Amino acid sequence: MTYTELAYYNGEYGLPAELKIPIEERGFIFGEGIYEAVLAYNHIFWRLEDHLDRLEASLRFVEMPLPMPRQQLIVELEKGLSMVEGDLLSVYIQVTRGSGPRLHSYAKFGGAVLTFTIRQLDPDQSYMETGMAAITEPDIRWANCHIKTTNLIPHVMAYTHAQQAGAYTAIFHREGRVTEGAAYNAFMVKDGVIYTAPLSHEILPGVTRKHFLALAAALGVPLIERSFTLEEMFAADEVFLTATPIYPAPIVRIDGRQIGDGKVGPISRRLHIAYEEQIAAHCGPLR
Amino acid sequence: MTYTELAYYNGEYGLPAELKIPIEERGFIFGEGIYEAVLAYNHIFWRLEDHLDRLEASLRFVEMPLPMPRQQLIVELEKGLSMVEGDLLSVYIQVTRGSGPRLHSYAKFGGAVLTFTIRQLDPDQSYMETGMAAITEPDIRWANCHIKTTNLIPHVMAYTHAQQAGAYTAIFHREGRVTEGAAYNAFMVKDGVIYTAPLSHEILPGVTRKHFLALAAALGVPLIERSFTLEEMFAADEVFLTATPIYPAPIVRIDGRQIGDGKVGPISRRLHIAYEEQIAAHCGPLR
Repeated sequence: MTYTELAYYNGEYGLPAELKIPIEERGFIFGEGIYEAVLAYNHIFWRLEDHLDRLEASLRFVEMPLPMPRQQLIVELEKGLSMVEGDLLSVYIQVTRGSGPRLHSYAKFGGAVLTFTIRQLDPDQSYMETGMAAITEPDIRWANCHIKTTNLIPHVMAYTHAQQAGAYTAIFHREGRVTEGAAYNAFMVKDGVIYTAPLSHEILPGVTRKHFLALAAALGVPLIERSFTLEEMFAADEVFLTATPIYPAPIVRIDGRQIGDGKVGPISRRLHIAYEEQIAAHCGPLR
Repeated sequence: MTYTELAYYNGEYGLPAELKIPIEERGFIFGEGIYEAVLAYNHIFWRLEDHLDRLEASLRFVEMPLPMPRQQLIVELEKGLSMVEGDLLSVYIQVTRGSGPRLHSYAKFGGAVLTFTIRQLDPDQSYMETGMAAITEPDIRWANCHIKTTNLIPHVMAYTHAQQAGAYTAIFHREGRVTEGAAYNAFMVKDGVIYTAPLSHEILPGVTRKHFLALAAALGVPLIERSFTLEEMFAADEVFLTATPIYPAPIVRIDGRQIGDGKVGPISRRLHIAYEEQIAAHCGPLR
């Protein structure tokens, strides 16, 4: 454990701010990248298999091979993890088609793997006390949002618009129907029932989303997979977002309007506690 | 003129296959890139100002600054051009937000400029004799196709599907209404009238498209800016695509079905001859 952060590209290690890649990388020229971000607590990966399943599903969709066997990728990820200090690390994995002259068609590329192993950003989770603010934005993305690509211009624009407005992130909607957050699945609670959009090409099949569904069932909280509208969301008792590093993010203000009583709600809290118990059971004490 | 091809990134020159960029480039991590490709005949740029106008319009849309004044960019482009041999060169320009830790929001980045100066690929234009084949594909792209970004996964997939089917490229449609080609504006001719989709967020405002409209008027060929359907396209007398390196590409077979008499049509030929006369008047003899 000699690094505080580490980057990896096709067999080479270095500091994220120093490592270089070829200028002809198709991830750079065509945005041809598929990615995942996984957490490791106490140097133990959390739900890595779920992330690798989704990575492989996304790769299949864009007809991009994983450049090494999955088992070898896991060995590389474990090796990178062992070189970095920290009880809570985020491991970013990006697969591209590799490098070559700028031709649109992609028949003959060998592929490349990038990883970043870095400190997780919000380890203290102060938002579980205060809640967070969000804005809403029209969902202008492509037709295959279930695929986790690095074609992220809509996401970074929405995220930045949120921060410009003093909010944490943005929640997308298609003509008034909520799809998901800019990097999160979206949930609302009304009269003790949790709602979230069903899996489709419009939303990412979130790993945390999947396990929250099972967790809600285990806790006896009813959960219905159906889309909800902006109006329903503004009138909800609780709104929360999930993503790998955020389980959940309670949203207490949207477009300047208070959600529920403006405080972090009881179902958000129960899910948070129960999910951290699952993590601790697998990875050991969290703090 | 000491190179046969040249890459440039933020002040540094090198061979495209050798030059490196930072792994934290946001063009690589978030697909945050805006690009143009310009031709130079006899080392004289062709309609560079049109391309730079569009570059700046796309940059404004994604809230990304041009990292140097436009006049300085032109100086850099001319300098790169002067270093490369060839009567017909393609100059690719990509602007990104630059490099930094992987955070979605983009407030504080300085920006980066990449260029490639390379040989143009199809200088002999044999397709003007034989015509080309295309396939059709659903247009699954985002809502802002008038912006020329490097979020190109849909384009490279469509292009590759075409090549897998033995065709040259793909023509996109939204529920049966033709939008444009995978890297081209789309036109059809019926009963002596040219049709092409009007400018909107669904198509790129092509530089060649713009000048073809003026050229058709100058030649006395009626042209109507309205969308056409797949059925209308299959029943057309001529179909052609335009892009900077291709003015036009006559399409004589789509999804295996013959268009018109299966030969390059007279209006495609007239436009081609007239456009090359314009180029030659500005840049000197073409071959």
